Amino acid sequence: MNFPFRKILIYGLGLMGASLSLALKKKQAGAEVTGIVSSEESKKKGISLGSADHLLTSVEFQNAPNWNSYDLIVFGVPVDTTIELIRTLPKNFSGYMTDMGSTKRDIISAVDSALTHGFKVEPKLYEDTSIESIDDSDIQSGKNTVSLSGHRYVSSHPMCGSEESGLEFANADLYENRLCILTRPKDALPDAYSKLESFWRFLGMETIEIPALEHDRILSYVSHAPHLISSIMTNWVWENECVQKFTEGSPLPLTGGGFRDMTRIAGSNPKMWAPIFSSNRDEIYKSLQEFRKHLDGIISELDPQKPLDPDHWKSFMEKARVDRDGILKHNNGPKKS
Amino acid sequence: MNFPFRKILIYGLGLMGASLSLALKKKQAGAEVTGIVSSEESKKKGISLGSADHLLTSVEFQNAPNWNSYDLIVFGVPVDTTIELIRTLPKNFSGYMTDMGSTKRDIISAVDSALTHGFKVEPKLYEDTSIESIDDSDIQSGKNTVSLSGHRYVSSHPMCGSEESGLEFANADLYENRLCILTRPKDALPDAYSKLESFWRFLGMETIEIPALEHDRILSYVSHAPHLISSIMTNWVWENECVQKFTEGSPLPLTGGGFRDMTRIAGSNPKMWAPIFSSNRDEIYKSLQEFRKHLDGIISELDPQKPLDPDHWKSFMEKARVDRDGILKHNNGPKKS
Repeated sequence: MNFPFRKILIYGLGLMGASLSLALKKKQAGAEVTGIVSSEESKKKGISLGSADHLLTSVEFQNAPNWNSYDLIVFGVPVDTTIELIRTLPKNFSGYMTDMGSTKRDIISAVDSALTHGFKVEPKLYEDTSIESIDDSDIQSGKNTVSLSGHRYVSSHPMCGSEESGLEFANADLYENRLCILTRPKDALPDAYSKLESFWRFLGMETIEIPALEHDRILSYVSHAPHLISSIMTNWVWENECVQKFTEGSPLPLTGGGFRDMTRIAGSNPKMWAPIFSSNRDEIYKSLQEFRKHLDGIISELDPQKPLDPDHWKSFMEKARVDRDGILKHNNGPKKS
Repeated sequence: MNFPFRKILIYGLGLMGASLSLALKKKQAGAEVTGIVSSEESKKKGISLGSADHLLTSVEFQNAPNWNSYDLIVFGVPVDTTIELIRTLPKNFSGYMTDMGSTKRDIISAVDSALTHGFKVEPKLYEDTSIESIDDSDIQSGKNTVSLSGHRYVSSHPMCGSEESGLEFANADLYENRLCILTRPKDALPDAYSKLESFWRFLGMETIEIPALEHDRILSYVSHAPHLISSIMTNWVWENECVQKFTEGSPLPLTGGGFRDMTRIAGSNPKMWAPIFSSNRDEIYKSLQEFRKHLDGIISELDPQKPLDPDHWKSFMEKARVDRDGILKHNNGPKKS
């Protein structure tokens, strides 16, 4: 595959951004990668680790923002910072843009309002695009240019990551064989989606398109609410006096592997997660209310006043296993646990 | 260390029992291990895998139960079966007994009522025990024997295991560097605790004594309720239409590693878990009510009608991390995630 980008700006070289940079190098993309970090300390670390071809702090970049020097910009910063940056993008920027944000409605809404109006795109940029695939409504004839009211921003959500944060945890294989969800803003030019799709596939990912609303709903169930549940579990367990007393007197933790696994993501990087909880508040609220209904059902089954039904637990556990297989698509391939 | 047992019966050669048998061999305990399995099929499997020195089905054993041929009996069956077996133990059995049950009050109560009365223990069995450590009240002088109203049953809970079940998943290192909780019935003879403690330490475990009530309370928090929460999560997520629709259309699951980890224990072996939920019902009920209070607090913070407090999420996530470190004793050693 001919890799379609030559100069890439990764704005936010944390675990995800630095892994992306390393993956591009490992896959021999041949692109020159500039990474933006938040501090001088990270810059030093990034240089010593070879996290990107060029490293700049955000202060250095913002002193002389040269967005137009890049043909692809990837935001690797928290959702709230991504939105702020989208608002500062130059109106004449005609390159490709994406992010790796964990919520989509706020990002897409920022793109819709910041990037849609007043774009003039030179026809030479369209060499790869079938003109038939462009809606008539998108085209306004000009003298020497085809002016499209559109942009080349398509939002991405690579479904990988780690409870760790920081470029020192970067891993060139992070994206390999994982899923990337793509979300198309309403005014994205037709070639933008296919180019970004090729980009992630080049890195070994599978892709799926999911609209912003559905993305945020799904993610509230499979990621955002579970992060809260995991964090709640640590507070709840540690507040119990009996657990604390015997844990303190024990040579080893009183937990087994199950609890350890369930709370691995508890207290993940607050800088990344606080904006997710704020940004996807409505969906997380609704999904946790659904979760509470299930919880109440189980609590009611456990009520010591009620007769005991051992069969209930067997069918409950069996259903849980079947549902998990559905979610993890175990029926479609070899079981992975 | 001189290993104190020569003939061991592991009643229930599932994942835990078969791992115990393999660990004894690996550590060169020099004991002869007989394992009881539930079916002819498991017996064949166990013989071909070398899961124990001798294998019997439970039907074969119960046709001619020779409890007295063993100096240590370890129950590796679900809690409800353990209790049934305790009730069938011969009244004159003077060997050591334990189980690997996940709840303690019901087991200890069965031991208290089945084993306490009428035991006559030959003094020769006391060669290793300091007579000073035996309470006067436990001793009734006899002509040629010291009759103690006691037994040699101490309950164990090795804190290891797996979401898998069956002897084919046995692992000789399962017990290494893990914690074993020991629970002493009120009439256990003093040497029983120290002998059982030596037994688990011989296998590389650390030990702690926790009374039955506290054990069951702690385990409801760190294991039983989390198993239910994990299982609830799969039901809750898979019932969402949006998740189902896009999962079915996706080349890969829509979940990240966090969800996969949190639901690893969902739908664990129902034969083992249904009796745990029944047996520790009161404590799980109480702990899940506490969990719901925490959940309600979070749901209330997410209420779209209320003003947004981004700082809340940061402090919440930070507290979750600190609490997790407390539970997993990370402050006392290198961080393991």
